Amino acid sequence: MHLPTLVTLCDFVATFAFALVGARIAAGKGMDFGGIAMVAAVSSISGGTLRNLFLLHQPPWIVNAWLLLPILLGVLLTITFRKVEPVGRFLLALDTFGLAVATASSTQFALNQGVNPVVAVILGLIGGIAGGLFRDLLAQIPPVVLHRETIGTSCLLGSATIVALRECHVQKIIAVLIGGAVVVIFRELSIHFEWNLPRVS
Amino acid sequence: MHLPTLVTLCDFVATFAFALVGARIAAGKGMDFGGIAMVAAVSSISGGTLRNLFLLHQPPWIVNAWLLLPILLGVLLTITFRKVEPVGRFLLALDTFGLAVATASSTQFALNQGVNPVVAVILGLIGGIAGGLFRDLLAQIPPVVLHRETIGTSCLLGSATIVALRECHVQKIIAVLIGGAVVVIFRELSIHFEWNLPRVS
Amino acid sequence: MHLPTLVTLCDFVATFAFALVGARIAAGKGMDFGGIAMVAAVSSISGGTLRNLFLLHQPPWIVNAWLLLPILLGVLLTITFRKVEPVGRFLLALDTFGLAVATASSTQFALNQGVNPVVAVILGLIGGIAGGLFRDLLAQIPPVVLHRETIGTSCLLGSATIVALRECHVQKIIAVLIGGAVVVIFRELSIHFEWNLPRVS
Repeated sequence: MHLPTLVTLCDFVATFAFALVGARIAAGKGMDFGGIAMVAAVSSISGGTLRNLFLLHQPPWIVNAWLLLPILLGVLLTITFRKVEPVGRFLLALDTFGLAVATASSTQFALNQGVNPVVAVILGLIGGIAGGLFRDLLAQIPPVVLHRETIGTSCLLGSATIVALRECHVQKIIAVLIGGAVVVIFRELSIHFEWNLPRVS
Repeated sequence: MHLPTLVTLCDFVATFAFALVGARIAAGKGMDFGGIAMVAAVSSISGGTLRNLFLLHQPPWIVNAWLLLPILLGVLLTITFRKVEPVGRFLLALDTFGLAVATASSTQFALNQGVNPVVAVILGLIGGIAGGLFRDLLAQIPPVVLHRETIGTSCLLGSATIVALRECHVQKIIAVLIGGAVVVIFRELSIHFEWNLPRVS
Repeated sequence: MHLPTLVTLCDFVATFAFALVGARIAAGKGMDFGGIAMVAAVSSISGGTLRNLFLLHQPPWIVNAWLLLPILLGVLLTITFRKVEPVGRFLLALDTFGLAVATASSTQFALNQGVNPVVAVILGLIGGIAGGLFRDLLAQIPPVVLHRETIGTSCLLGSATIVALRECHVQKIIAVLIGGAVVVIFRELSIHFEWNLPRVS
């Protein structure tokens, strides 16, 4: 399989994962089919959309409309199987994979635009978490990423890893793979050991 | 009357309609005059603003500051007549007209930029519904467009109609008029017969 | 001290002020360290980010990554001293200074881009208030700027003053200083005399 094909496949799986989680949460909040589709779409595309707009590029789904297909698939699956129960173990794993792909591709995209390394780390973080943040705001539930779990920390570690490796002239593909693995491993460990960031109060 | 004048007139009436509904909802939530003005502005300009930013254009109200005038008018009317009761039949009709204009002009704008037909349909939808979505998020009420009614469906059908007709080389003005009519008719039918999109649970 | 240095210093203090207020509010809502950092960042950079995107420029923190430093400082201070009590008199004064700087620099930035004077006033307002609005939406509390106080009015008066003075060919630095002073004075007066904008109901 060629590398570009693999990258595109990863992007599609990540988009599908985010859409599926978004659709599930919207369905659980009692939204109608339109609301489910909209929350699914916002969950999966706002990270890349925001990242691209900040760098004065058109959103990914305008550049490549095929990205809308995995969203449609996620919505149809949710509606067809009338899934409303909380996100289970399998879907959580899919979501983590999506997080890794979104973070790695956002960081790499930012580096390609020649931004400052610190900015690339932040844009990688935004690409990873913005979708989930907007999803929760639309569903009017307290955003997971602000209150508990270690989604943001995982993405930040992953994007910082990629930027650091690229600064040390490690090959692009290797840096991205290691960075993505950091996201997955840290996220899985934090779920397993119930790590949480501390609070002030 | 020249066509550009008619188009501008429609845009102004649509902006006014969205501002009036937004101001009314903000007033009903007990916001002060500043909050009313801000919700009115966000209701009427975020659809076009988002559409333009996605296509890397400046927002419509920066390009043509006169668009701020109907917003001011809507705010002044709401404040002067101290309107807080729920949106009535006349205002709902005005809002539907605004929906049709916003959807049609957004779809046409997207097509003019040479985007993929599917993307043009989505941008037409965003132009139609984003204002109402942000309005409800600012007012911190469950967004109408996510939970019930058929606002999104009407806009989607309208923008899909325009794109389909334009793909069949139907004249621009005719495609836009038919698409706008589809929005109005489907929306009025769904209000009259109390159609709602189904839910999962 | 050179003028550019002074301007940069003001920007840093304003960013720090907004970050500190944002971090305090997030901490008070029981968010974890990640949520505190994110709300602090959104509070301090969304005004300038939105203003720049509307004018098709990259966000300020992408152009100058040093702007992320005062945010980090605000977050670290909040976490270290475990501050959760409501914003006090000193922090409120700092916030007012931030408001004046953000409004003045946004208005001036807009004028430099050659936009219509009315649009410059609106962009000055957006630069001043967007951070606080998004902060409250993330914290899921009723946005202060929509419901009470006179933050929006102060910013609007300040940006209108700058635009009016610049239209009368008053020197740039003097217009900005007077406009900033208008924001501070009107805000302080409205806090002291408990002025509020009226409501409809």
